[in-house]
Amino acid sequence: VSLDAANRAWMQGATYRSALKAGDVMAGGALAEVVESRAPGLTPGDLVFADTGWQEWAAVSARGLSPLPRLEPLTHLLSVFGVAGLTAYFGLLECGRPKAGETVVVSAAAGSVGTLVGQIAKIKGCKVVGVAGGAEKCALLTRELGFDAAVDYKAGDLRRALRATCPDGIDVYFDNVGGDVLEACLFNMNLHGRVACCGAVSQYDGAAPPHGPRGVPGLIVTKRLTLQGFVVMDFYAKRDAALAELKAWVDEGKLVVREDVLEGLEALPGALVGLLAGENIGKRMVRIA
Amino acid sequence: VSLDAANRAWMQGATYRSALKAGDVMAGGALAEVVESRAPGLTPGDLVFADTGWQEWAAVSARGLSPLPRLEPLTHLLSVFGVAGLTAYFGLLECGRPKAGETVVVSAAAGSVGTLVGQIAKIKGCKVVGVAGGAEKCALLTRELGFDAAVDYKAGDLRRALRATCPDGIDVYFDNVGGDVLEACLFNMNLHGRVACCGAVSQYDGAAPPHGPRGVPGLIVTKRLTLQGFVVMDFYAKRDAALAELKAWVDEGKLVVREDVLEGLEALPGALVGLLAGENIGKRMVRIA
Repeated sequence: VSLDAANRAWMQGATYRSALKAGDVMAGGALAEVVESRAPGLTPGDLVFADTGWQEWAAVSARGLSPLPRLEPLTHLLSVFGVAGLTAYFGLLECGRPKAGETVVVSAAAGSVGTLVGQIAKIKGCKVVGVAGGAEKCALLTRELGFDAAVDYKAGDLRRALRATCPDGIDVYFDNVGGDVLEACLFNMNLHGRVACCGAVSQYDGAAPPHGPRGVPGLIVTKRLTLQGFVVMDFYAKRDAALAELKAWVDEGKLVVREDVLEGLEALPGALVGLLAGENIGKRMVRIA
Repeated sequence: VSLDAANRAWMQGATYRSALKAGDVMAGGALAEVVESRAPGLTPGDLVFADTGWQEWAAVSARGLSPLPRLEPLTHLLSVFGVAGLTAYFGLLECGRPKAGETVVVSAAAGSVGTLVGQIAKIKGCKVVGVAGGAEKCALLTRELGFDAAVDYKAGDLRRALRATCPDGIDVYFDNVGGDVLEACLFNMNLHGRVACCGAVSQYDGAAPPHGPRGVPGLIVTKRLTLQGFVVMDFYAKRDAALAELKAWVDEGKLVVREDVLEGLEALPGALVGLLAGENIGKRMVRIA
């Protein structure tokens, strides 16, 4: 079962799916094996990506299933070759549109999407700065994942830290968190910069979203920025080509895949709470069978 | 001399020009006549658009001047064929990208840019709703300028009023004001909607911009919106074609031009204060010679 910050957003209200209510089975995408099927083309043993929810067994309509290849490690089907990988790929390349030599900043940089965004930006010849919480994550980004620099947002005055770390300004900001981090980036964006709006995990607690970042829309105007929201499914027409490119990068060792696999159905609630608190590095998932 | 909300923004801090400070000549663009020139190609009697500031006479470098044709009425060179017209044209068509049948909302709709944005959107086959302050302006929009509806933001609960006036949601929002009006529009935007960020007049008082609209970036993500800031000069490579189209629309009677011309250098400070308070309808300018 894939654990994502989006799980929390679904509980807050309607997003690109209707809101989860108390009493519903907790929603979540999973890598699942078909054990019984009356649908043509799906036979026991097939692997699929399915919105099973947090369950050991699920009866789901064949229409919503994506067949998956049986590759090793299987976990990659939920990380780099799953929603996380495609979100990083399309969000950065289609919304961020980085050019070689530009400065790319990504928040939640040690998370499932952030670790891949930074590495893809490096493959594209950019200077890459990750924003993450704590020294351990920051060290991982620069030592193991090839980021040029990392900034610890818990260390205070992020706006100034970004100015020091990005002396040429920010051309592309891949936003996973919203709020204060988005605000600090907006003040450091260059003219004609692009913000790929992927998520807003800083805003998912509380009944209604609080006031937004300062400088919206003032800075958007004066800096001629583009803020573009996206959801990965919008780009699924180009999915096969993206997966082929991701696979090539993994095979060539250009893309390091970090995963964080927990065990057992009982681990799921704590795994989500921990993810929202920033506990994990890379793609968190729970194996329940 | 052209009066614009941007005059106020220049006093707040650095924008696309450096900040105006106390003691500076107040900046402002003007339609001016050359009375003396040592520059080749510029002779007495020529009309130019120049950043003269609020002065009866100005000595300016020839490099910053745009030569203008001598057409009637001359005031059109500061309204529909000037910065206001081109801002409406490019901001709507290049950033808003409206399609026939879509719903377009514009704020400060009775102002110099707003009156033109709404009419151009009608020419493009859209449903057009203007947001303005007070019953008089709202009546003007629907009765004289062909808007389909107008909403008075001073009448309260703008978010609900927009929902009622735009039952199919908003596809394009041309934002002249920022703040609460932007927020109300964000909640009513359709999937893949576009926000053309032109100005933020609600934010120009006070030392620093206050907190931004709620739902940034949450709504941007879930609705896959694009917010794009622009300044009209960005599109000047396409200026001649735009002016030709604007001129044809005016000649055919498709575009009604509203202007608000005051007299005398002494009128300038009050004219700007009044503009920021929403006193004018259409393009405000002051004739000082």
